[in-house]
Amino acid sequence: MSMNSFGRLFRFTTWGESHGPAIGAVVDGCPPGLAIDEGVIQPFLDARRPGQSKFTTQRQEPDQVRILSGVFEGPDGLQRTTGTPISLMIENVDQRSKDYSEVAVAYRPGHADYAYDAKYGFRDYRGGGRSSARETASRVAAGAVARLVIPEVKILAYVSEIGGDMIDPGKFDEAEIGNNPFFCPDAAAAARWEKIVDDARKSGSSVGAVVECYASGVPAGWGAPLYAKLDADLAAAMMGINAVKGVEIGDGFAAARLSGEQNADPMRPNAEGPDGAPEFLANHAGGIAGGISTGQPVTCRVAFKPTSSILTPQQTITRDGEAAEMFTKGRHDPCVGIRGVPVVEAMMALVLADHKLLHRGQCG
Amino acid sequence: MSMNSFGRLFRFTTWGESHGPAIGAVVDGCPPGLAIDEGVIQPFLDARRPGQSKFTTQRQEPDQVRILSGVFEGPDGLQRTTGTPISLMIENVDQRSKDYSEVAVAYRPGHADYAYDAKYGFRDYRGGGRSSARETASRVAAGAVARLVIPEVKILAYVSEIGGDMIDPGKFDEAEIGNNPFFCPDAAAAARWEKIVDDARKSGSSVGAVVECYASGVPAGWGAPLYAKLDADLAAAMMGINAVKGVEIGDGFAAARLSGEQNADPMRPNAEGPDGAPEFLANHAGGIAGGISTGQPVTCRVAFKPTSSILTPQQTITRDGEAAEMFTKGRHDPCVGIRGVPVVEAMMALVLADHKLLHRGQCG
Amino acid sequence: MSMNSFGRLFRFTTWGESHGPAIGAVVDGCPPGLAIDEGVIQPFLDARRPGQSKFTTQRQEPDQVRILSGVFEGPDGLQRTTGTPISLMIENVDQRSKDYSEVAVAYRPGHADYAYDAKYGFRDYRGGGRSSARETASRVAAGAVARLVIPEVKILAYVSEIGGDMIDPGKFDEAEIGNNPFFCPDAAAAARWEKIVDDARKSGSSVGAVVECYASGVPAGWGAPLYAKLDADLAAAMMGINAVKGVEIGDGFAAARLSGEQNADPMRPNAEGPDGAPEFLANHAGGIAGGISTGQPVTCRVAFKPTSSILTPQQTITRDGEAAEMFTKGRHDPCVGIRGVPVVEAMMALVLADHKLLHRGQCG
Amino acid sequence: MSMNSFGRLFRFTTWGESHGPAIGAVVDGCPPGLAIDEGVIQPFLDARRPGQSKFTTQRQEPDQVRILSGVFEGPDGLQRTTGTPISLMIENVDQRSKDYSEVAVAYRPGHADYAYDAKYGFRDYRGGGRSSARETASRVAAGAVARLVIPEVKILAYVSEIGGDMIDPGKFDEAEIGNNPFFCPDAAAAARWEKIVDDARKSGSSVGAVVECYASGVPAGWGAPLYAKLDADLAAAMMGINAVKGVEIGDGFAAARLSGEQNADPMRPNAEGPDGAPEFLANHAGGIAGGISTGQPVTCRVAFKPTSSILTPQQTITRDGEAAEMFTKGRHDPCVGIRGVPVVEAMMALVLADHKLLHRGQCG
Repeated sequence: MSMNSFGRLFRFTTWGESHGPAIGAVVDGCPPGLAIDEGVIQPFLDARRPGQSKFTTQRQEPDQVRILSGVFEGPDGLQRTTGTPISLMIENVDQRSKDYSEVAVAYRPGHADYAYDAKYGFRDYRGGGRSSARETASRVAAGAVARLVIPEVKILAYVSEIGGDMIDPGKFDEAEIGNNPFFCPDAAAAARWEKIVDDARKSGSSVGAVVECYASGVPAGWGAPLYAKLDADLAAAMMGINAVKGVEIGDGFAAARLSGEQNADPMRPNAEGPDGAPEFLANHAGGIAGGISTGQPVTCRVAFKPTSSILTPQQTITRDGEAAEMFTKGRHDPCVGIRGVPVVEAMMALVLADHKLLHRGQCG
Repeated sequence: MSMNSFGRLFRFTTWGESHGPAIGAVVDGCPPGLAIDEGVIQPFLDARRPGQSKFTTQRQEPDQVRILSGVFEGPDGLQRTTGTPISLMIENVDQRSKDYSEVAVAYRPGHADYAYDAKYGFRDYRGGGRSSARETASRVAAGAVARLVIPEVKILAYVSEIGGDMIDPGKFDEAEIGNNPFFCPDAAAAARWEKIVDDARKSGSSVGAVVECYASGVPAGWGAPLYAKLDADLAAAMMGINAVKGVEIGDGFAAARLSGEQNADPMRPNAEGPDGAPEFLANHAGGIAGGISTGQPVTCRVAFKPTSSILTPQQTITRDGEAAEMFTKGRHDPCVGIRGVPVVEAMMALVLADHKLLHRGQCG
Repeated sequence: MSMNSFGRLFRFTTWGESHGPAIGAVVDGCPPGLAIDEGVIQPFLDARRPGQSKFTTQRQEPDQVRILSGVFEGPDGLQRTTGTPISLMIENVDQRSKDYSEVAVAYRPGHADYAYDAKYGFRDYRGGGRSSARETASRVAAGAVARLVIPEVKILAYVSEIGGDMIDPGKFDEAEIGNNPFFCPDAAAAARWEKIVDDARKSGSSVGAVVECYASGVPAGWGAPLYAKLDADLAAAMMGINAVKGVEIGDGFAAARLSGEQNADPMRPNAEGPDGAPEFLANHAGGIAGGISTGQPVTCRVAFKPTSSILTPQQTITRDGEAAEMFTKGRHDPCVGIRGVPVVEAMMALVLADHKLLHRGQCG
Repeated sequence: MSMNSFGRLFRFTTWGESHGPAIGAVVDGCPPGLAIDEGVIQPFLDARRPGQSKFTTQRQEPDQVRILSGVFEGPDGLQRTTGTPISLMIENVDQRSKDYSEVAVAYRPGHADYAYDAKYGFRDYRGGGRSSARETASRVAAGAVARLVIPEVKILAYVSEIGGDMIDPGKFDEAEIGNNPFFCPDAAAAARWEKIVDDARKSGSSVGAVVECYASGVPAGWGAPLYAKLDADLAAAMMGINAVKGVEIGDGFAAARLSGEQNADPMRPNAEGPDGAPEFLANHAGGIAGGISTGQPVTCRVAFKPTSSILTPQQTITRDGEAAEMFTKGRHDPCVGIRGVPVVEAMMALVLADHKLLHRGQCG
């Protein structure tokens, strides 16, 4: 029932505040025998790190992960998972607590400051404490472990829209994603986004984004109706990411505007596939029907609101309930959705790994 | 970890197939002392029942609920919850199994038929078995119990869009919702929808819908970061409803197109409220920040795809992997989103009740 | 986190009060494809039923179970599990509520009356409400389903001691267990116990008992350290049975009096077994080491206190806190431990089934 | 469902191998506002440390705990819990891995070596890896946090028996417990035990022990039938401690030999207590009835088997299934039960803290 753990069989618990000494994750239920060391995890963290371009926050964190348990040298000399909990730790290095002195006494609109105080009575206000996006580094590390469980699945996420400006699906080029600071698969859109995000940064404003993610190679059968449905778990996983306000599977809200004939995914026999497995002629469903994977690519879209840390003064109240104005001086992302891409991929991996084990447990 | 239970402290488990003898729910963790009898629950089921108008499915089910445990006559003569599990049962009356004979051997596109077979090896195909929307009656019954836990909260859901045709927010009239078969708060829109849905029914097609729901009176502090966030639990709850493909909190995907200044919810001191509680000047957040309720109304939008049971023949395969064509002859909803309204309300109640108890448990 | 569910993957939830209309269980996570109908479950309930001999309670309950969901006719015509929740219901027939009128206002010492009132504020006092041993019928029904998951395991429980009088291990005869009303494997002991229990019944007193249970055929590897240890789960399962006050695995408390050499279970190569699997030369461990099964028979002992419903007047207080005296007039067991045997077997089956699936889920 | 987490609301997850770089625990669900720093936790670890006397293992570990998250300076300058996860870490310092070289290829009888290999395929064999009693340091640290939640409860554990030699209850002196290396409340018994344990140590053998624990000040009402019973959770908590083979609540197995009249706990009005709360005239129940606390002291007894690491050669097999003989050369406890005392207290605290929050959550 844990409030800070996610997953059922493949389950991780994260801990750590933005300005505490460290953050980390404990991954539980990982199958034994999977080859793993820091080098397997680090690249995913590097893709997420702040301070990588002028378009993201200027906080410089090396985000070096250490594996403290749950691994051992297997018979072949490779370090492998033992099946026991894997503790991952990332030390915080570049905290600038002085930038947050005002936050201690007033609530930043759009952040969780007021909500945390209302719930707990007080909070670690520095850098957003536990509500900070720093915690997502723990998720990315845990997601790297999850991928080892599902080697048959390919996961890819990218930004499809920034500040209302959309990519052109006709120009989609996977190779382009690693070529620009926006995880954008459309070179022309990436060029436009430089200006959009730079303008926001300079004016101390911020913009929102939409991230799309798909997973191919997921076999049919993952997901357990009714309350461990694969799409419900994905929805929780994505909506739980900082700044997310909407989640869609397959056609999402667009499906509400289709007719039954337009929305159906017809099937026909698959000449190459396993006995009985169909070839789908469309994928409006996003790879999930009745909460169970169908074998189609699993697709989802995630909406990130604009960063609430902006230079424009906003009306707010102090801890004592008095009127105040505030703007944020610290270092911030003009577009948090960009760094949400590795997090969305990590959550996809974590949910799929969990469901692979769940299905195996119940159905063999 | 149960795959058919939802919730953490206030937790319900549902069971039952569409064409089995009955369906039901066991509600666990309900606080003791709440006044309850069948009369408290039945009205919510009546709002959901099939066969109520020509616009919904023609299956006639009385949906009479029985309370089999967890209640007893209190000192004042009223039947009250004892704190032990509350078992609710609804018998199935009007199954027409012969309409499903073809379904046994071929997969209906857009339904979970193929996915269930891939997972379990075989399935109760009659009426969609466990994947049927019949099961939502169990949820509505459980939701009625949940409402007793949160008397301070008002929950209201309505259809805001059918087949792409939207209500006019300026004409919103709560009293109108009960006046038409669409749970529509805009009389003019309701009139247009009669034609849209009737056309779909006559042509054997179907349309999608969007349901909006809000909960007012939710105090600040409900929700437990990071993995029991209130919005994440709502996302899972709603995405888990049959035919749902998208969930938004507050501005949802529209937030991705706002700037930071446009999206912020400024605060000012509240003259009337409790010490320190602010008055919010906007509600882009949908009442949740950092996964915790803020005191603003909690708002969400849920997208329902069009029913996949249509008269138009569609390409599919049989259980043996051979090509086939199929259309559905049984009785079906031309728009399942309509009857989703009581279900969305029930899930909102269930999640809020659970979080009220969770918050009380951890923070007193 | 459910408070009325037990198990992690193979999980059951029970409901029902002793004098309510019915009791039942919902079994979740059962693998699909297992052949099952009422006839598979009923024999286990029949072994447990009250009113079977003059040595057990005189309440006459047919305990007829109905399967309400989770099963369907498979391709071969046999009814089989579908993988969806299996709802089992047993109607209460022979309640005599008038026998409990006094219990409404005073607390029976040794029962949970006072504790329930302190927790919930009020309770269904009739027949012990939810605390009644009637609920164990639900567990026995769920246990029958669990056995289908572990056909490779043989489970056997029997009474080894009543009122301090012990069986002679040298006279152990499995066939004898079904020959007497005490599930006793030693005919001479059974004869002695007739007098002991009859004397207790006639004088309105009661005696305690010890039940032993073993499971053979459990392979090595079930159980997941650290907090899903097989022995910890068995301890919780058994201690949770009404009237149980002690649980031992293997040598139990006797192990505390052995030396290291005496307690060790030496191993030697097993000529017949799978590669590497050892033959154990002793079983002090009770088949579990470090929380994981070793392949040795899993053995446990469970201590049942004497029934607290006796004719001897005892000092107590009323609901209003005033002094009172009370004795119980209703029909009761002079030795509840006897009917604990099928319950102990059921819990052993439920825990083992859960762990088989858990192990398969994590380790394949 | 986590396999390495314990508890429902107040929940902890432990990680770490005996010879890995560190061990730790993440405590989740702790109420906010409790004053805590390393100085609150360290004393409990110091009571548990190895190398404290010639009677316990000779491994020298400082067991210095660090709090890495979940705390912050409150308004009054004291460091307090924030309600977010509390990560505790203890570095391993004194590992002597060379002592375990033989263990890599053969299985120590009585340990979990074979079981771990059977389950996971391979294991960190050094010092027992995850199955080592080192992990209990994590539990003791978590238990220290739990005690902050239940300041109204006094918990005390002590050894009541070593190698079959029992204390004399008539000579019980609480102050004596801290005066000898055995946590023994009977000075005369402590003197006898010096010889018993020293003899075992010198001959390379080992002895078992029984630890008793009680908690006073527990109000009535904690525990949630049926499957979150307080006694069932205590049974799981204690049986899950390394080397434990038996758990009793109240009279335990002795209750099986009492009559109903002897076993009952009569009640009478309590002149001083709250309205309606009784004074109990005996405590055979051990403070728990029907799985709920009654207000009587909660008492339990825990049986520890003798250490399986002994110098006497024992028959075993190698990883390849061949016959072998082995004895353990490393540093070991001649009586692990002694250091089980702080662990038993910690588990009592963890279970009670969890149940206090659970009860508050459901019943207010």
